[in-house]
Amino acid sequence: MTTTEAGATAPSDDSTQNVTHATHGYHKQKDEHLKRLRRIEGQIRGLQRMVDEDVYCIDILTQVSASTKALQSFALQLLEEHLRHCVADAAVRGGDEIDAKVDEATKAIARLLRT
Amino acid sequence: MTTTEAGATAPSDDSTQNVTHATHGYHKQKDEHLKRLRRIEGQIRGLQRMVDEDVYCIDILTQVSASTKALQSFALQLLEEHLRHCVADAAVRGGDEIDAKVDEATKAIARLLRT
Amino acid sequence: MTTTEAGATAPSDDSTQNVTHATHGYHKQKDEHLKRLRRIEGQIRGLQRMVDEDVYCIDILTQVSASTKALQSFALQLLEEHLRHCVADAAVRGGDEIDAKVDEATKAIARLLRT
Amino acid sequence: MTTTEAGATAPSDDSTQNVTHATHGYHKQKDEHLKRLRRIEGQIRGLQRMVDEDVYCIDILTQVSASTKALQSFALQLLEEHLRHCVADAAVRGGDEIDAKVDEATKAIARLLRT
Repeated sequence: MTTTEAGATAPSDDSTQNVTHATHGYHKQKDEHLKRLRRIEGQIRGLQRMVDEDVYCIDILTQVSASTKALQSFALQLLEEHLRHCVADAAVRGGDEIDAKVDEATKAIARLLRT
Repeated sequence: MTTTEAGATAPSDDSTQNVTHATHGYHKQKDEHLKRLRRIEGQIRGLQRMVDEDVYCIDILTQVSASTKALQSFALQLLEEHLRHCVADAAVRGGDEIDAKVDEATKAIARLLRT
Repeated sequence: MTTTEAGATAPSDDSTQNVTHATHGYHKQKDEHLKRLRRIEGQIRGLQRMVDEDVYCIDILTQVSASTKALQSFALQLLEEHLRHCVADAAVRGGDEIDAKVDEATKAIARLLRT
Repeated sequence: MTTTEAGATAPSDDSTQNVTHATHGYHKQKDEHLKRLRRIEGQIRGLQRMVDEDVYCIDILTQVSASTKALQSFALQLLEEHLRHCVADAAVRGGDEIDAKVDEATKAIARLLRT
C-alpha cells in the first residue's frame, strides 16, 4: 500500500476530493489519535528495552498483549468514525456507492479479525 | 507490571537467577527480536504520518492490521522459545515448577487470544 | 440476552416494527445462514466425537480453529448485511438514529475482536 | 484433516501409540470437555433458532461472540493439558522430540490467534 496514493483508491470521490479530504471521519479526533499512537510507539520502545535487558519472556508477552489491545482500540475508534461519516454519507448520497463502502468496511473488519 | 522486578515473578529460580537470566529462551534471538520491534516501531510512526496527512481511514486500518500481525508474530516467536527453553527446562528439573510454568504460559496465550 | 425480547432493544423502530422485522439485513440470506450454521453444528459434534475417541490434542485444536473461523465468517456476513441495510437505512432516515446504530455496530465489532 | 488418521501425524509415537493414546493430556477431563462442547452445540442451535425467527442482527452477533469465546476457552483448556502432559513428557524423555512438539504446539497457537 502506498500511503501517498491512498486517495486514488476512492475514484468515485474525485470531484469532491478536497472536501472529502477535509472531512474524513477521523479528522476532528486527529489530536486524540496522534496521542494514542505516540503512546503505542512508547510501548513498542518499551518492548525493545525489555528485550535488551533480558526481561522474563512472560512479562514481555504481557506488554505485547497491551500494545495489541491499544492498536485495536485505535482501529475501533477509527472504524466508528468511518461508519458514522463516510459510510453514512454514502448512504445519504444514494446510488451504488454505499455497496462499495460497506464492502470495503467489511473487508477491513475481516482483516482486523484475522490478526 | 514493573519490568525491573520481572525476576521477582519467578521466586523458585532464586538460586539460579544469574544463570537463568543469561539463558532466557529468547536470548540467542535478541538481535532478530530487536530488529522486528524496530520495524514495528517504524510502522507505528508510519501510522502517525498517515493520520497527520489525512490518509483515507480504510488504508490506515490496513496498516493497523499489518502492525498487529507483526506484533503477534513477535509474540509467537517469543512464546515458542519460552516453551522450548523455560517450560521444557522446568519439566526436566521435575517437581511442581512445571505446573506453575504451564499455568503461566497458558494465561499468557489467553491474553494474546483475547486481544 | 433474552433472544425473544430482541426487538425491545430497538425502541425507536416501534412504529415500523413489523416492517423492519420483515426486512432485517440478513432476511434474504436466511437459507444460506442456516446452512452455514448447520455445518458449524456438525463441526461441533465432530469435536465431541474426536474428544470421545481420544484423538490427538493438536488435531482437535485444528478443528476448533476451523469452527471459530466458520463462526467469524458467519458473523462478518451478518455484519455486512447489517451495515448495508439497517445502518444505511438509519443514515437515510436522518436524525439521531444513525449515531445509535453506529455505536451499536461498533460495540458488536469490538465484542467479535475481543474473542 | 482426517480425524480417524490423527494418530498418523505423530509418527515418532508409533511404538508407544497405545500408551500415549491412553494418556492424552485431556483424557482425565474428558467428561468436562464433552459437557462444554454440548453446551456450545446448544449455542449453535440457538443461533439457528435466532436466524429462523428473524431476531435482530446485533443480538445474533452477541451470541456468535459468546460461542466463539466458549470455543476458545475449550481450546485453551486443551492446550494447557497438552503442554502439561505431552510437551512436558517429551522434554523429560529428551532427544529431538521436544523440538517437534514445541513447533507443533506453536503452530496450533498461531492458528488459534489467526482466527
